[in-house]
Amino acid sequence: MPRTKGDHEARRRDVSEAVWQVMATRGFAGLTLRAVAAEVGATTGLLTHYFPTKHALVEYALDLLEQRTVSRPRRQAGEGLAAVRDALLDILPLTPEATDSNRIWVSSWDTALSDPVLSTGYARKYAQSRDRLTERVAAAQELDELPPGDPADIAAGAQAFVLGLVVQVLFDPAAFPPQRQVELLDDYLAALTASR
Amino acid sequence: MPRTKGDHEARRRDVSEAVWQVMATRGFAGLTLRAVAAEVGATTGLLTHYFPTKHALVEYALDLLEQRTVSRPRRQAGEGLAAVRDALLDILPLTPEATDSNRIWVSSWDTALSDPVLSTGYARKYAQSRDRLTERVAAAQELDELPPGDPADIAAGAQAFVLGLVVQVLFDPAAFPPQRQVELLDDYLAALTASR
Repeated sequence: MPRTKGDHEARRRDVSEAVWQVMATRGFAGLTLRAVAAEVGATTGLLTHYFPTKHALVEYALDLLEQRTVSRPRRQAGEGLAAVRDALLDILPLTPEATDSNRIWVSSWDTALSDPVLSTGYARKYAQSRDRLTERVAAAQELDELPPGDPADIAAGAQAFVLGLVVQVLFDPAAFPPQRQVELLDDYLAALTASR
Repeated sequence: MPRTKGDHEARRRDVSEAVWQVMATRGFAGLTLRAVAAEVGATTGLLTHYFPTKHALVEYALDLLEQRTVSRPRRQAGEGLAAVRDALLDILPLTPEATDSNRIWVSSWDTALSDPVLSTGYARKYAQSRDRLTERVAAAQELDELPPGDPADIAAGAQAFVLGLVVQVLFDPAAFPPQRQVELLDDYLAALTASR
């Protein structure tokens, strides 16, 4: 029976989903052709058609992580401080989907830090993220909703705060339910605001 | 020639140092018997005497990380807010040694998150670290150097801030030289203080 283009696309989606699931449960350390094959219900042989090497699998996984992050739904940004808050809330693991995505990001740091090319790419990605946040901080300063001072420093501090909160939530979700994450972020923003 | 106890101890120290170096440069993803053997200048066969399995090597590496963290030099804690600041400075990658150690911690998160036993151990470790910080925060509140409010929340926020800063520094050391790390931490503490 001839395979159709539809079959091929459907199989490709299944493989993506399987790679995502393996990363969300086992991290990059557990990302193997065998694990993906088991998840998708295919033979390891078939998987080598998609990923001839382990390196190809890791590269695919990193691209998938990037794509899903870029295309994830975002809060409709308010203005000023509300827009800063929205951007930070968008990062936190407040839903199961955001938890999986953060879990995979944190897990990818080991791989990224040990590869100079990847590491440079990550540094650029985080710098761009700080730059976007810096613009929102500057806009909030213009509205006098944040204190004066270098907006890049305020953005770097805020990014540090949410990244570190992500790590603590992943290890101890019981201690950091979504409501507490939001409260801690609001305490952080309140302290920034109070120092005007 | 009979091997003496001294030889054995010296070799053990060499192996520890080699495991540390491999982790600091290649992370847990690159921690293999072969890499450790190459670093220590021994055969892989000799290394299997120390680490019969990959699991044994990873376990040893995690113990080594824990030991070196526990025994690292600490700032002589001042009182009140100064003691909070000292504890946070002790975490930051302000020296090459602290950078290696942080690099290995961040790298270990992938391994730890994918293993329920390790993950529980990490959660406990970070909770204890927050508890110790909570005591210092409460002491600073008694001196009216920090605002009232749940000291556990203030400690969790401060821990989040430094952990996230660590991650940003590791990926982009040029953007976060030691002086800027300290300034960002001091800005963070100043905002907390100003909200009294």
